[in-house]
Amino acid sequence: MCQYLEASAAASRSSCGYHRAEYGALMAMEGYRGFLGLLVSALLVGFLSVIFTLIWVLHYREGLGWDGTALEFNWHPVLVVTGFVFIQGIAIIVYRLPWTWKCSKLLMKSIHAGLNAVAAILAIISLVAVFDFHNARNIPNMYSLHSWVGLTAVILYILQLLLGFFVFLLPWAPLSLRALLMPIHVYSGLLVFGTVIATVLMGVTEKLIFALKNPAYSTFPPEGVFTNTLGLLILVFGALIFWIVTRPQWKRPKEPNSVLLQPNGGAPEGMEGSMAMNFGNMDKSDSELNSEAAARKRNITLDEAGQRSTM
Amino acid sequence: MCQYLEASAAASRSSCGYHRAEYGALMAMEGYRGFLGLLVSALLVGFLSVIFTLIWVLHYREGLGWDGTALEFNWHPVLVVTGFVFIQGIAIIVYRLPWTWKCSKLLMKSIHAGLNAVAAILAIISLVAVFDFHNARNIPNMYSLHSWVGLTAVILYILQLLLGFFVFLLPWAPLSLRALLMPIHVYSGLLVFGTVIATVLMGVTEKLIFALKNPAYSTFPPEGVFTNTLGLLILVFGALIFWIVTRPQWKRPKEPNSVLLQPNGGAPEGMEGSMAMNFGNMDKSDSELNSEAAARKRNITLDEAGQRSTM
Repeated sequence: MCQYLEASAAASRSSCGYHRAEYGALMAMEGYRGFLGLLVSALLVGFLSVIFTLIWVLHYREGLGWDGTALEFNWHPVLVVTGFVFIQGIAIIVYRLPWTWKCSKLLMKSIHAGLNAVAAILAIISLVAVFDFHNARNIPNMYSLHSWVGLTAVILYILQLLLGFFVFLLPWAPLSLRALLMPIHVYSGLLVFGTVIATVLMGVTEKLIFALKNPAYSTFPPEGVFTNTLGLLILVFGALIFWIVTRPQWKRPKEPNSVLLQPNGGAPEGMEGSMAMNFGNMDKSDSELNSEAAARKRNITLDEAGQRSTM
Repeated sequence: MCQYLEASAAASRSSCGYHRAEYGALMAMEGYRGFLGLLVSALLVGFLSVIFTLIWVLHYREGLGWDGTALEFNWHPVLVVTGFVFIQGIAIIVYRLPWTWKCSKLLMKSIHAGLNAVAAILAIISLVAVFDFHNARNIPNMYSLHSWVGLTAVILYILQLLLGFFVFLLPWAPLSLRALLMPIHVYSGLLVFGTVIATVLMGVTEKLIFALKNPAYSTFPPEGVFTNTLGLLILVFGALIFWIVTRPQWKRPKEPNSVLLQPNGGAPEGMEGSMAMNFGNMDKSDSELNSEAAARKRNITLDEAGQRSTM
């Protein structure tokens, strides 16, 4: 979808294509190597977390199945780490990939929403797995802090997804509403992501205390050490995602010679190109301001919206 | 220290005093009421977390003491929630209090560092309590994910405190080093704070599973429900602190008529007044830039430094 096209005629550009010169400009992104290094690290650590979770349930635990036994429970950590941690983490930073900066905003929003929708579905299936397991074994549901915080996170995540879909992806929400909700959308997205990681660490703690009896967790059995390491990996993954998503220099840069790449697809998407010339990656469709007076306020809000316009 | 002085002569101002007009300007801070509401909420929820922790250990658990028994262990949650959560949270937002914006930066740094130092001391004593308890009862140390993440957080917090002290509080670090380290300082401060909250949630989980046997945690005993609620309060406290500290409109505003309030106390502190006129709460002593060329880069870096200059 995002090939590096070398066609010279502007007319032949796709909404996601590049001139060689533009590709060269990307390479000059401030701290591009640092970004790539951290991105690769995040992908590696996230991928490793998924692998560690699979090794945990397949090697140290009972394996996977869907029969109401521990085999079904084991889908819970696998789906949570794969969807709710790894895929959500990637969804959070997808706007920061410099080779997507010339893609249409609608495409990027669809990818962001799509990844989050996949993560939400996996999170919901992971809940079904653990409720099924509890019910089959007559274990009460929803008594632990892990379950309270985890269910809250899933509900907030689904609300966030619906809000994002109706307000930012569909074209009908007024600009003022988008401007109002964007900081909340970004904040609550990162808050839920952090809460999910905290919940995973609680879940690992719970499961190891319940499962490791002989030898006990406190005697440093290999499974305990291995799964503690999984917990650290997930924490490091979260830390990398938070660093990547909060660096202002890794936003789409202002481009003095930028042109309106997207043929106008109708308001408000069509406004993006011209806004990008003025305000970096400021997206008018998401960040149009109310008519406050003070210049300082306007500047700050524009900076903020620009910095945060990862939706 | 920060009284609202009404003296009219500029010469009579303390480094932390206000003219009536300046006090009026603070009231016009963008979203001042919202800020106050969230600040009071954060203080309330944080205070409630400490009270809940005390009720937990004094009413539901064995109480407090320093004798190697559970009484000594109980200092662990009390000191962690009081110092490592509540006081650290306040230390994080102390630069955002608008009535401190005219105080000297050195004073605010000292308060920030002082609060963090108190939190670090309480965190260290809380570790001594739990190690003492384990050793007296022959319970192994450092086997759980809670202990791995928690000790990492304490070590990072102490390193962060030392880095802050030597680089930002003492006057000798070169400006370029401060500019380089400030974003890392802010990021790692918030990362450690979030990690501490995750660790507390793991600790609550661990303790409730270990302690609630008859009736078991899974039967919804009052202590389980009460302490789960404590966990939620701590999470909400963290969420409020994160919201407050990431709102750009609650930074010290640019003041067109601002004057150099602090009599020059020697470089680099004395530079602040004039920098404030140009870059809002940009603090030259912390954020002086290297001599990069690109205007965009400069703007972004200044914005970032201004936005982040909570040290």
